[in-house]
Amino acid sequence: MARTPVLTPQAEDFPRWYQDLIAKAELADNGPVRGTMVIRPYGYGIWERMQADMDSRIKEQGARNAYFPLFIPQSYLTREAEHVEGFAPELAVVTHGGGKELEEPVVVRPTSETIINEYFSRWVQSYRDLPLLINQWANVVRWEMRPRLFLRTSEFLWQEGHTAHATYEEARDYAARIQRHVYADFMVNVLGIDVLLGRKTAKERFAGALNTLTLEAMMGDGKALQMGTSHELGQNFARAFDTRYLSRNGERELVWQTSWGSTTRMVGALVMAHGDDQGLRVPPRLAPVQVVVLAIKGEDEVLASARRVAEELRAAGVRVEEDLNTDTPFGRRAVDWELKGVPLRVEIGPRDVEQGAVTLARRVVGGKEPVPAERLRELVPRLLEEDQETLLRQSRERRQSRTVEVTRLDEAVEVTQQGRWARMVWADLGPEGEEKLAQHGVTVRCLVTEDDDVPESEGQPGVRAVIARAY
Amino acid sequence: MARTPVLTPQAEDFPRWYQDLIAKAELADNGPVRGTMVIRPYGYGIWERMQADMDSRIKEQGARNAYFPLFIPQSYLTREAEHVEGFAPELAVVTHGGGKELEEPVVVRPTSETIINEYFSRWVQSYRDLPLLINQWANVVRWEMRPRLFLRTSEFLWQEGHTAHATYEEARDYAARIQRHVYADFMVNVLGIDVLLGRKTAKERFAGALNTLTLEAMMGDGKALQMGTSHELGQNFARAFDTRYLSRNGERELVWQTSWGSTTRMVGALVMAHGDDQGLRVPPRLAPVQVVVLAIKGEDEVLASARRVAEELRAAGVRVEEDLNTDTPFGRRAVDWELKGVPLRVEIGPRDVEQGAVTLARRVVGGKEPVPAERLRELVPRLLEEDQETLLRQSRERRQSRTVEVTRLDEAVEVTQQGRWARMVWADLGPEGEEKLAQHGVTVRCLVTEDDDVPESEGQPGVRAVIARAY
Repeated sequence: MARTPVLTPQAEDFPRWYQDLIAKAELADNGPVRGTMVIRPYGYGIWERMQADMDSRIKEQGARNAYFPLFIPQSYLTREAEHVEGFAPELAVVTHGGGKELEEPVVVRPTSETIINEYFSRWVQSYRDLPLLINQWANVVRWEMRPRLFLRTSEFLWQEGHTAHATYEEARDYAARIQRHVYADFMVNVLGIDVLLGRKTAKERFAGALNTLTLEAMMGDGKALQMGTSHELGQNFARAFDTRYLSRNGERELVWQTSWGSTTRMVGALVMAHGDDQGLRVPPRLAPVQVVVLAIKGEDEVLASARRVAEELRAAGVRVEEDLNTDTPFGRRAVDWELKGVPLRVEIGPRDVEQGAVTLARRVVGGKEPVPAERLRELVPRLLEEDQETLLRQSRERRQSRTVEVTRLDEAVEVTQQGRWARMVWADLGPEGEEKLAQHGVTVRCLVTEDDDVPESEGQPGVRAVIARAY
Repeated sequence: MARTPVLTPQAEDFPRWYQDLIAKAELADNGPVRGTMVIRPYGYGIWERMQADMDSRIKEQGARNAYFPLFIPQSYLTREAEHVEGFAPELAVVTHGGGKELEEPVVVRPTSETIINEYFSRWVQSYRDLPLLINQWANVVRWEMRPRLFLRTSEFLWQEGHTAHATYEEARDYAARIQRHVYADFMVNVLGIDVLLGRKTAKERFAGALNTLTLEAMMGDGKALQMGTSHELGQNFARAFDTRYLSRNGERELVWQTSWGSTTRMVGALVMAHGDDQGLRVPPRLAPVQVVVLAIKGEDEVLASARRVAEELRAAGVRVEEDLNTDTPFGRRAVDWELKGVPLRVEIGPRDVEQGAVTLARRVVGGKEPVPAERLRELVPRLLEEDQETLLRQSRERRQSRTVEVTRLDEAVEVTQQGRWARMVWADLGPEGEEKLAQHGVTVRCLVTEDDDVPESEGQPGVRAVIARAY
């Protein structure tokens, strides 16, 4: 018997499916000010797990956390010409504070390169102070005309890394290390999302950067989503803020810089990469709740058994939640946990208790089966690992099967309209071709080498443009 | 031979000592917009440790983290009359966004009761949804006329808890649990700061609360600092936002609420509670760096020995940093680590290596002595525990020895001018007396019972007012 769908089916209307899921899985709500977002506890729990994992990876790369002010003097932004041009249309401006009009309006940070350079220029004296490796976890504001929960919000949460180095090579290598060893590693191995590593074209670069490295993932509808970026800033901001160091030779040299960010957008990516018509599917390594133990009925033995099973799994290092809310019908609770994408459900009813069994329901691959209770301790960690791999494999297969080599621009456009990515020799497309794509709502997501790696430069032989519609 | 003081001595000028220390220990800098603050990596490392510890205590009390928007429609604030009156003079107002003037200006959150109630009123349907226990880690803005790093900044970081309950008693008990089991427990056992738990007078209450519970600590100069507050909001915000639940009897009842907060101010408290003329003294349980291992000279054996010692201590669960920067004179590095208040320094030079010894310098109690290297593993954890207790004992003794029972208002004023706290029967002082104190720059920090506990009400017999100058 077919169930009434809890969500608009993906095939019917993907954007509506996304909205439905965000609401029904209790991930987030729209804020009262247009474009802002309330992240609900379950959504925030996912973000906290992302933060914790990323934070330790960032620290492994030697960076330390700090905190810079939310408010930036408007004059700072104008010091780097491209930067202000890029961000001016998105700024929120504070004109009044403490009951008075401010002498100089301040902007709410859209990103922190300028204010951070102001301090780098004070803190960096000699080559001994380099590299200076800083990260911050913060909220930023970019006024958004067409907001979408997690994907495009006027305020979002992120980490932004900012570093200063003595040489161009060191800065370049550091930006690449972040792209690969912090971002890609986390996205692939924890989020279970396949990512393509590449470099942005000049048109798509960060405002003020020499080069932007990116990670692009394919969502369930075949559109691309930029998962994170790592920028070589060169000496642009250093010049604007006079960030110099005394070299071993006694010269006052400009530093070379990087910046890099990843945001709450990753929660949206998680939904669109792994979600299905029943809801979210959270990869076990990330999941705040890996297993939910549900009591089907409120009888004492059932509740006791559910508590015991939960305790045993916890002792085995599994993140477990108990659902003993038997006031609410079991079917509704099961659907809710499916919506939330908890990888495994252990369901326990009176008959299970009699038989020393439980019912194990798997969210990632589907299906339910009875299992002897004493096998859970061994079985659960193994299934969680299996599910983690399954999600990554599905994500990888999707991109591989839906990427098409093309030779002409019109082919590229056609391919993207079918929810696929096109791959075309960059030299055959070029910046003019890129402009034409824009007219069809299509962009060059990144440039890659023939074997899908990050090219050293745009001009490197064999470089391909990866072309897609994007979030 | 007396050393040149690295800081203005406390006895000479306490506020300048504080400023010097914040700068030289690299805790924070002033931001470019008046009243804002840059928290440097060492200061932020301390805050991160505070956050992690508090966060787990908050979760133990059943609250879950979420995130509400930075921007609040101005109209929300005006719904609770006392609340808007309290916060209006401190608001930062955004009037322009995305290049246009906004139709309704938005305020940058000074606190989140209003916006959170807007969502509580949607999320709470029935008694089954209660209690609703939410916490958020966020930045807030309150325009500050006389800013001071960490103590009073226009933007600060904090956690704010917000809860909704079915009954008055449940809300009251929850607010008290937070005061005692989250805040006091953390401050006493981790920060090593003695705190007095009390309730605020009507004059000092949070804008919109029925009752505010507080934790007050005595700083090195005898002034008081409010370390955290926990409010019984009653039904004031629930009424303003129509936050109701369907009771078991089928009635739509207003919820009872609490809110509670603690901020980056605690970093300032740490400095002023434990700092001395050599710098900060960080309690070992909090310290991001508990032990620094310094190589005195850059010889291979010295560096190897320092690394080995650091590794052994790390294996014993100690948080260790290696200082092998022998390009910088040893004396300067030792002074820097003293300034930063790292509890133990292990200094290793060529002679120590020969003798299989190290020099162990203790920051909290002072002094240096040679120790056989193989004893460190056993000695260090024990000394760290000792130092933790010493700091708390010193903090406790300070308050006890500097609190004076008085019977008259003029005595109270005099006592506070000597850097002490006065304790006076509240019924003898009363709200009028409180108004008179204000003219002398003195406030009632809190009301306590005869034996320094939290009174049930202002009117309870024997209630004392604790009177002090305050930050």
